[in-house]
Amino acid sequence: MDRLGLHKQILSKKSMLCVGLDTDMKKIPAGITMYDFNRAIIDATARYAVAYKPNLAFYEAEGAEGWKALERTVEYIRLNYPEIFIIADAKRGDIGNTAKMYAKALFENLDFDAVTLAPYMGSDSVKPFLEYKGKWAIVLAVTSNASASEFQYLDCGDGPLYHKVVKEMMKISTPDNMMFVTGATHVAELAEVRRIAPDNFLLVPGVGAQGGSMEDVIRYGSNGKGGLLINASRSILYAGNRINDFEYAASEAAKDMVEGMKIA
Amino acid sequence: MDRLGLHKQILSKKSMLCVGLDTDMKKIPAGITMYDFNRAIIDATARYAVAYKPNLAFYEAEGAEGWKALERTVEYIRLNYPEIFIIADAKRGDIGNTAKMYAKALFENLDFDAVTLAPYMGSDSVKPFLEYKGKWAIVLAVTSNASASEFQYLDCGDGPLYHKVVKEMMKISTPDNMMFVTGATHVAELAEVRRIAPDNFLLVPGVGAQGGSMEDVIRYGSNGKGGLLINASRSILYAGNRINDFEYAASEAAKDMVEGMKIA
Repeated sequence: MDRLGLHKQILSKKSMLCVGLDTDMKKIPAGITMYDFNRAIIDATARYAVAYKPNLAFYEAEGAEGWKALERTVEYIRLNYPEIFIIADAKRGDIGNTAKMYAKALFENLDFDAVTLAPYMGSDSVKPFLEYKGKWAIVLAVTSNASASEFQYLDCGDGPLYHKVVKEMMKISTPDNMMFVTGATHVAELAEVRRIAPDNFLLVPGVGAQGGSMEDVIRYGSNGKGGLLINASRSILYAGNRINDFEYAASEAAKDMVEGMKIA
Repeated sequence: MDRLGLHKQILSKKSMLCVGLDTDMKKIPAGITMYDFNRAIIDATARYAVAYKPNLAFYEAEGAEGWKALERTVEYIRLNYPEIFIIADAKRGDIGNTAKMYAKALFENLDFDAVTLAPYMGSDSVKPFLEYKGKWAIVLAVTSNASASEFQYLDCGDGPLYHKVVKEMMKISTPDNMMFVTGATHVAELAEVRRIAPDNFLLVPGVGAQGGSMEDVIRYGSNGKGGLLINASRSILYAGNRINDFEYAASEAAKDMVEGMKIA
């Protein structure tokens, strides 16, 4: 999906919501499969969401069965909600040869639109993902966890490391195939990333369960064309916890979240 | 497996060889499955190898079937060569909640001894892996690819970023549960990592197909107690390319590599 298509969807749904599919077998209602849970969540939230983001760790934790549930989930979204953007939250990052294999797994076999990537190994670990027309790399800039500052904020002469990451990635990409992860829990840094990369979409985790403010994210992260995908996972998936209420609760949680967004 | 056990195996086999199982369906002989190829390679090289390292990208590229082949491969090594160390080359790195899921996938379901991790998100993305007694985290310090220098060599005030990574990781770990990845293609940096972390094992990719020198790796990376796992993947797996010679060729390639090692 291209940037214009994503932007159009944001305007028509008046939403920048990305629903993170961190489907945890210990938290979903008893007696339902990963895939059936995902399908119900997707049906309940598709009118509010512009993107879904399966977190691969949760599927790998269930082995080959989990991988099948992941495949079926992506297929279900593609078939039923073809306008919705699908992100593999994988945080991969490896040398060219291996990166190509991950790209094949996620872009050819699974038909994700985008994949999250860690930058430590440099540009040549990201380039193989940029070779797919219409697909996106989403590189970690500032993450939402507490120890994000340990390396990401280190002053590397010309500003902190995350500045350098964003600048280097911009050299090998365009705003049509590169986004950055910038956590809602670090608002000053979110504003900095927006300043350095005015036209790139930012994928923002950390609103909701992790405590980031929606208002701040929009104030400091929007670029006047939306330019944000704001993720919520647990606060939507587990808004309800019984077999007969989780869909309604997820739908209401998604709706509430979208009502808090002002789409420029 | 503990450090002493690994060290004993190195002395008895007079080898520090880690065989990377980068099993590529496009490169293995026609008419053989991933699992059968791996089993044959393992049987052909087990007398020379102290560790095996499946590269998860190659299994994910084959979907649920690939994941099953991965599970069966780990199981096969465990049952038939219980003394051999098994590394998941996954280069994961995510927030605590998700890191726990990856740890479950790789240490509980799959019984790997160790997993490779990317450090960008900081200590709290590594700690969940250190909570498993007898299991190891192997954190990227200096990688073997060309653009490694882009971020890893950046001067962050108190030396380059990879120094800071090694030092921070040493604060939360011991030489009994932490190793570092240091590519053979960057010998000066390999020597630096050895100086900062005298007692930690180093996992060294890049000898062979990528051009690193075995002699240099041992001279600058050994700590007098071995302390190295030297990886070779393609140069062993694809030493032969026909169904009736690949096992013998892999065995000979592994033997040649081990003969080039002087175990202190």
